[in-house]
Order: sequence, then structure tokens, then C-alpha cells
Amino acid sequence: MKTGVTTPKGFKAAGIHCGVKKSKKDLALIYTELPASAAAVFTLNKVQAAPVLVCKENLQKTKKFHAVIVNSGNANACTGERGYKDAIQMSFKTAEMLNIKPEEVFVSSTGVIGELLPMDKILNGIELIVDSLAEDDDLASAEAILTTDTFTKTASGSFMANGKTVTIGGMSKGSGMIHPNMATMLAFVTTDAAVENGAFQGALKEISDKTFNKIIVDGDTSTNDMVIALANGASGIEPIQSGTPEFVSFLNCLGKVMKKLSIDIVRDGEGATKLVEITVEGALTDRDADKAARTVALSPLVKTAIHGEDTNWGRIIAAVGYSGIEFDPSEFEIIINGSPVLKKNYEVVLPAEEANKLLEPREIKILLKLNCGAGTATCWTCDFSEEYIKINGSYRT
Amino acid sequence: MKTGVTTPKGFKAAGIHCGVKKSKKDLALIYTELPASAAAVFTLNKVQAAPVLVCKENLQKTKKFHAVIVNSGNANACTGERGYKDAIQMSFKTAEMLNIKPEEVFVSSTGVIGELLPMDKILNGIELIVDSLAEDDDLASAEAILTTDTFTKTASGSFMANGKTVTIGGMSKGSGMIHPNMATMLAFVTTDAAVENGAFQGALKEISDKTFNKIIVDGDTSTNDMVIALANGASGIEPIQSGTPEFVSFLNCLGKVMKKLSIDIVRDGEGATKLVEITVEGALTDRDADKAARTVALSPLVKTAIHGEDTNWGRIIAAVGYSGIEFDPSEFEIIINGSPVLKKNYEVVLPAEEANKLLEPREIKILLKLNCGAGTATCWTCDFSEEYIKINGSYRT
Repeated sequence: MKTGVTTPKGFKAAGIHCGVKKSKKDLALIYTELPASAAAVFTLNKVQAAPVLVCKENLQKTKKFHAVIVNSGNANACTGERGYKDAIQMSFKTAEMLNIKPEEVFVSSTGVIGELLPMDKILNGIELIVDSLAEDDDLASAEAILTTDTFTKTASGSFMANGKTVTIGGMSKGSGMIHPNMATMLAFVTTDAAVENGAFQGALKEISDKTFNKIIVDGDTSTNDMVIALANGASGIEPIQSGTPEFVSFLNCLGKVMKKLSIDIVRDGEGATKLVEITVEGALTDRDADKAARTVALSPLVKTAIHGEDTNWGRIIAAVGYSGIEFDPSEFEIIINGSPVLKKNYEVVLPAEEANKLLEPREIKILLKLNCGAGTATCWTCDFSEEYIKINGSYRT
Repeated sequence: MKTGVTTPKGFKAAGIHCGVKKSKKDLALIYTELPASAAAVFTLNKVQAAPVLVCKENLQKTKKFHAVIVNSGNANACTGERGYKDAIQMSFKTAEMLNIKPEEVFVSSTGVIGELLPMDKILNGIELIVDSLAEDDDLASAEAILTTDTFTKTASGSFMANGKTVTIGGMSKGSGMIHPNMATMLAFVTTDAAVENGAFQGALKEISDKTFNKIIVDGDTSTNDMVIALANGASGIEPIQSGTPEFVSFLNCLGKVMKKLSIDIVRDGEGATKLVEITVEGALTDRDADKAARTVALSPLVKTAIHGEDTNWGRIIAAVGYSGIEFDPSEFEIIINGSPVLKKNYEVVLPAEEANKLLEPREIKILLKLNCGAGTATCWTCDFSEEYIKINGSYRT
């Protein structure tokens, strides 16, 4: 089934091996012949990779885009003046091959930091990849942006507007360094909707905060993260404006697509064997709930306990305790996959052996009730396994 | 060689197995017949274990202490009213056996959270342990406070004051959940100095901030941490006052003892194979330097790279980038064990193969120069290994 960046009308994509990696695909291209408006969010790391800088500049230069060129295997980060020129050159070469302007191209890279791109291979690859552009090539492009990911991540959805079908598609990659604020995570979203510029950026920011910024693998925030969305209007609808029913439909659909793309990243977290949804209810504020949920999701002791299928709830309450929020520990309740484990006044309502069984499934929902206010938040994380260490101890070898 | 809590004059200690753990020693007692003044610092976690509450109360009730009773294997945390009563009972039983007042006893626990103490075993143990008190029993007591530690941690030092030898001794335990602000970490320091109360507390806080609060294993902050120091004056010196040469000597000696006790905790970090000292120089402020050093020390990606002996310096600079401080990445320099690896403008001055050799030793010093101010800070961490996951995935089984 076709699902991904070429699902919406008017988008083509391709993915090839150009030689940055030994043998896996490492170069992806998304192209729309119709000019597309764009929305984007970028890493908040002070150290920003060259392609991030180039994308931000291009957003200042033009409102219409035609392409995204992405390489994996090398992040082109911490590469100084030379790296910046290389990213610019990627946009120029792509523009030349597609007969568009360089500023109409987004440039993206992911992989090891601090090494110069092998530009001969990249430029040669860009020459070749345009010939592979296809209207139904979701998988090759989704494969070509991966680094330590173990599966491709694509999604799509559609909704009706003005009597016409509007489609949103996308692809993403993780899978280490995943943390709020776009940690090593790339996502590219395409839509044949037409969307007014401000509304488009607002929608992408809002949905990113609820999806990509709520996933936590290891707490590291990378230098290269970006979510780029392109809307080429090929569905034939009138541009969607903020505050309209169409905008609500667009937001809902974008939310579903981006939720799938972000949760797939956690599911494929480096060495992950379990997907864990952590919801905090009853905090004083939503912000407090978010702080508590993230701190639990980030705790190596909680994540290793989940990996070992050990309902060591003391580690959960201790993590909330050092999250910096106000709460009364004796009001704390824990519910796992719908089963109460801990009630108020530290009353353990499920013996350890039975509680541990709750952690056996591959997908686990942990609900933490603080019972001190109306603040809620949900985030997603994964367990922490020996495999994570293996992957990251020898990433470059 | 005798080194530990009984090295200073007038202190006795003991360590026995009372049955909280299967077979290892799990109950320790420190005793001074001469009354001792005390200084203490405690965990900042909102969730505070029962023994922490009892110690804080006792500090309000009296200025003179005679004993510290410690059990390992069970933290007596998140145990509600019953847990609080159990901690009180530990102080009463110890007081009864030693013929002192309950408030003159510090109570400490470490181990699993959320389970009630087996009080029959603990009380029986307290009856027995007083018979084992000895003036040269540093090792049994140091052993009895351990949880996942792989070796005992003791230290001692001495200095001259008023023509007399003054000695400071101590023991500590880690080894998971180590983070600033006293994460699951117990340390007990004894001295035969006499120290004016305010000066004693000031010294302990100052040295804790430079030692125990600068060690980072996994970022989790526990519910039970404490550093307790007892000064019984058995050396015969006049009480040391703040601002005197004797106070400076005391601070220096206390600094050496506590540095050894804290660094031993990192060296014995769960699954650790390497001790890593991270120094940041040239930050805008000391506070910024501290933030940067801690963020690097806490990054799972940096810690796994060090474990894999991979000088993946991009991960170091990326961690500083998301630490929240201001700096210019192109001014960043990295020096490992004295050898420059990265110079300004991302100039890599050592090929990866050679740089990786710098990570082969068991002790590694990483110096990060930000070149934008005069702020400096040092902290200590360890690498992150498969073993950490194994230990923490099955801690209770």
C-alpha cells in the first residue's frame, strides 16, 4: 500500500545509495512540480548543523519550495565554513538538476557529527537521483533517510474539504538522541492541501509540540533535527485559513500523521523493546504534568526497570520527586495498563509478581495520578536495553 | 591499614548481617562515647525517605550525637506512617542498647523503595551489633552499607592543629542513581576534631558541593541520600572556628577525604569501566561551566561513546549545545588526557584512530575550553555499559 510522502497528489520521491554509507541507501529527494508553501520547525540546540542554517536562510528568501534533498550517514554538523558551503552546494546541485532556484530546495543531513561530507559522492548522487523520482516511491526515500533505525517510518491520512479529498503524507527517522525539541529526528510531511502560510506554520508548530516534542528516547538533543512540511495545493482546494472548519480537519489529519511518525520513532528507539506511554494527571498545571512525565520518561532507572519487567514503582515516584514540581507523595497513584498498582498513602494494591506481568506486553501505558490539580500531559518513551549501549558504543565502527 | 570511620580517635563501628539481604552484611553502626557535634546534608528530592525525616527532626532536638545506625537492602522510602514509625523505632532500639537518647542517633537506610522494613530482623540485628563494635572495624561497617556497589569505600586523612594530630575518616556507598544533590548516596564522616557548630555545617556543605554534588552516574536523584559528619573532639584540640588557619586545614583535609569517598562512588558506578573527569573552562560564568560539564557528564550518547572508546566529539559539543548556556561553538576546544583533539573552528587535530586511543585508560580527563569567559567547573562521571542495564533491569530479582 502506498503511504508516505508521495501519497498526496503532485509529489514524487526517490531514495538511492550514493556512497556516504557502505551499502545502504543514503540519499533521498522529495519533489513537487507545483510550487509548495512550507512550514518548518528546527532543533533548539545552540550548535546547529549546516543544513539547518541553509534551510532557515531559504525560508527567509522565498515562500515557494519545490524540493527536499536529504543525506544520511553524515550530519554535516560542526563542520564550519566548509560544511556550510557543502550544504549550499547540495541545494545548488539539486536546483540545477530540477531546473529550479537553489533557495527553493530544503537541505537536510543526519548521521555522524564533525566529519566533512564526501561531496563528490553526494553531487554524483544528486545527478543520479533525479532519474529515480517516482510518484509512488514512498519506501525508497523513507529508507534512505534512516541511520540506526531498524524500520522505515511512513504515514498518511486524508480528509474532505470543499468537497475534495485532501491528503497528508510523511516520513520520519530516529532513533537515538530523541528528546523534546527535535532531537536527532527528521520528518518530512507533504500535503496536496493549499494552506495559508501563517496557518500552516501554526499548525505544524502546534502538532509538533504534541507529537515530536513529546517523545523521549535518551535525552540527547541533536544538532540537525527538523520537521519540514510542504503544501502544494494539488488537491485543488482553496487555501485553508486559520479558524475555519477546514483548518480543524487539517489539524486533526496532520495530528494523526505526525503522531504515527513520532511514535514510530520511539517504537524504534535504539535497542528499544517496549513502547511506553506516560500520562500524568492531576498535577497543579499542565506544565508541571509535562515536567513530571518527561522526568519519568527520561529516568534510566525507570527505563531499565521497564526493560527488566520489574514494576519498581519507587523509581517512578522518586523521579517525580526530583522533577522539580510540587506534589504530595502520599496522594500519588499509579495505574499500569488500566490496573491500579499503587493507591494513595503508598498502598500497594497489586503484589509485585502480578504487577510485573503488566510490563510484559510490548506496549505499556502508565498513568500517574498526582491528585493535586487539573494539569495533564502525555509523552512517549521506550525501555533502555543492553542493545542501546552496544549501538552507541560502536556507532562509528 | 586502618582507614575509615574508626580512624579518628574515639569512634567505634560494626557491620553485620541481620537478614534484610539474603546473606550479605546489611546493618552498620557507628558509635562515639564522647558526644559529637554533627553536620549533615540531605537529598533535595521532594520524596524523602523516613530515615531522612527522622535525622532532620533529631538535628532540631539536640546538638550532641552518639551514633549512626544504617541498614542496606531496603530504603524505607514511600512507606508512609508505618515506615516513619519504623525509622523512629530504629533510633529507640539503638539508643536503648547504647544507653543514650533516641534523638542522639542518626538513622539511615538504602535499598529498594516502597517496601516495609522487616523490623523483627532489624531490631534483633541492633541487639546483636552493639557487641561487635570495635575501634578498628572500618571494613565491616563500610561493607554493610553497600547495595549494588562492588567494593567498599573508605578514606581518612589528618592534619596538625594546636600541636595535635587531628584525623578525619569516612565511608560512602553508591552506586546507581548518582546525581547532584545527593542521589542515592550515603556518606558518613567522623573526626576527632572539635569544630564550632556553624563552621562544621558550613564546611560540610561547601565540601559536599565540590565533591558529592559533582558526581554523576545516571541522573537519578534518590529519596534517601545523606552525608552525616560527626566531630567528637577526642583529639583534644580547642573547637575550630571559621576563618582561622585551623579551619583552612580542616577544610583541606575534609575535602581530600570526601573527594576520595565521592570519586570512589563514580569509579564503582553501576557497570562502570571508566572514571571520567570533565572540566569546563572559559564559560561565561562558573554556573554556566557547571551546567555544561553536568550535561556532558549526563549524556547517554557521550557515556556510551566513552565506553566504546570512540572519540565521538560531536556528541560532546552537541551536549554543550543543549545544556542551555551561551557559547560560540566555533571557539570550542577539546583536550583529552592532555592531548588536543579539537581546536577552534572545528579543526580536528588528531585523527579518529589516535584520538580513540586516548580513551583506552581506565581514568580519563576531558577538558572543554569554551574560550568565552572565565567560568570553570569540574565534575566526575563514568561510562555507560551493558552491565548498567543488566544491574538495573533486574535489581529486585
